[in-house]
Amino acid sequence: MYKIVFMRHGESTWNLSNRFTGWTDVDLTEKGVAEASAAGRVLKEAGFSFDLAYTSVLKRAIRTLWLSLDAMDMMYLPIKHDWRLNERHYGALQGLDKGETAAKYGDEQVLVWRRSYDTPPPPLAEDDPRTSFNDPRYAGLPKASIPLTECLKDTVARVMPAWDEEIAPAIRAGKQILISAHGNSLRALIKMLDGISDEDIVGLNIPNGQPLVYELDADLKPIRSYYLGDAAAIAAAQAAVANQGKAK
Amino acid sequence: MYKIVFMRHGESTWNLSNRFTGWTDVDLTEKGVAEASAAGRVLKEAGFSFDLAYTSVLKRAIRTLWLSLDAMDMMYLPIKHDWRLNERHYGALQGLDKGETAAKYGDEQVLVWRRSYDTPPPPLAEDDPRTSFNDPRYAGLPKASIPLTECLKDTVARVMPAWDEEIAPAIRAGKQILISAHGNSLRALIKMLDGISDEDIVGLNIPNGQPLVYELDADLKPIRSYYLGDAAAIAAAQAAVANQGKAK
Repeated sequence: MYKIVFMRHGESTWNLSNRFTGWTDVDLTEKGVAEASAAGRVLKEAGFSFDLAYTSVLKRAIRTLWLSLDAMDMMYLPIKHDWRLNERHYGALQGLDKGETAAKYGDEQVLVWRRSYDTPPPPLAEDDPRTSFNDPRYAGLPKASIPLTECLKDTVARVMPAWDEEIAPAIRAGKQILISAHGNSLRALIKMLDGISDEDIVGLNIPNGQPLVYELDADLKPIRSYYLGDAAAIAAAQAAVANQGKAK
Repeated sequence: MYKIVFMRHGESTWNLSNRFTGWTDVDLTEKGVAEASAAGRVLKEAGFSFDLAYTSVLKRAIRTLWLSLDAMDMMYLPIKHDWRLNERHYGALQGLDKGETAAKYGDEQVLVWRRSYDTPPPPLAEDDPRTSFNDPRYAGLPKASIPLTECLKDTVARVMPAWDEEIAPAIRAGKQILISAHGNSLRALIKMLDGISDEDIVGLNIPNGQPLVYELDADLKPIRSYYLGDAAAIAAAQAAVANQGKAK
């Protein structure tokens, strides 16, 4: 039997200010820092140990991982950064306040952009300063791989090769793996593991900073999955995520 | 022409309490944290960019690297941990106060252990709780590779394969590299690069938290080397290192 642990980054500054973040490289809030350290303590107290960690190239996921590893006294753990674990790209909505966007386009349109499986928000213009074309962390990628917007389906399409080519072979090789990533890159992985439909996956809310354990059989099919830590805190964190994006 | 940057970790708790540290996994002091962040700021202001970082499996070097990368806004940089970049193992002296050790054995004997090229301190007993045999970060190593003591010559012998097999090929492949390591693993690399004699290398003092730049020719021979940052601070840091280990 195999085991893998997923972790959504702690609260970010734009979670707090309720902006569409996507690939924007915002940092954790103080609360997010505390959540990340707490996640590490919970993992340590539950006796978890790891051989390898994966994360995105965005600092809110990386800092969450660093703080967790620090709390586990495992700062020496090898870390692989993979841009394919990045958050869903939010196109022209990146940087906009969710409440303002909802007031402008209506709750319904925003909910479509946030929660439809295959309707992307309007794309960034190629010359928009918010594109990632000149960011050194994506310098090795063909320009066509760098999105200008994504629907969840697009995110799933780029996350899956990271699982198939990197993560799944490492699990099969016996590596105990911790993944620190984002709401939508984790939705992609959970959709695949649990066979969740296109319609249902958009309603799945993953709380910030709560370790989510999957126990897998020899074919990497889930036997069971559960959040570590305090049930009330997890429920509150899920409700907080569900409420994002509503007009104030 | 190639360029590589070396950085000795910031001040550690046992630098401060003047204990022999070696492979003991002590953390940075507040001053060490500030030094590490300052090193990152100096590198950023000087326009340095990197493709890859190497560090040891000891948290004082890892945290120094993390803090520097954070200050450079390059937390996404790939990091390779290599135990061969660890500090020199200090044998049975690990954990002992340098002043007390000097008072007991005499300044001269301590200076021999600290600064002779090929005289190791007394080894740890195999059943000493201070050995690294049961530490998970060394679990993949043959027991014979895990030292019970080292002289600088021993440290050089294990650092060099990391250079030859990992770091030098990466430099030749065009990677801009940052190395966050320790006084003696950096001495090993500088001895090799600058062709310093066994006698002279033991007198070379590398200050904590000061980026040291080497410009290398096509054969990886040094063209020039220099510390970045404030000259007075560097001189003070070097003097502080030179004074460690003297009886109070």
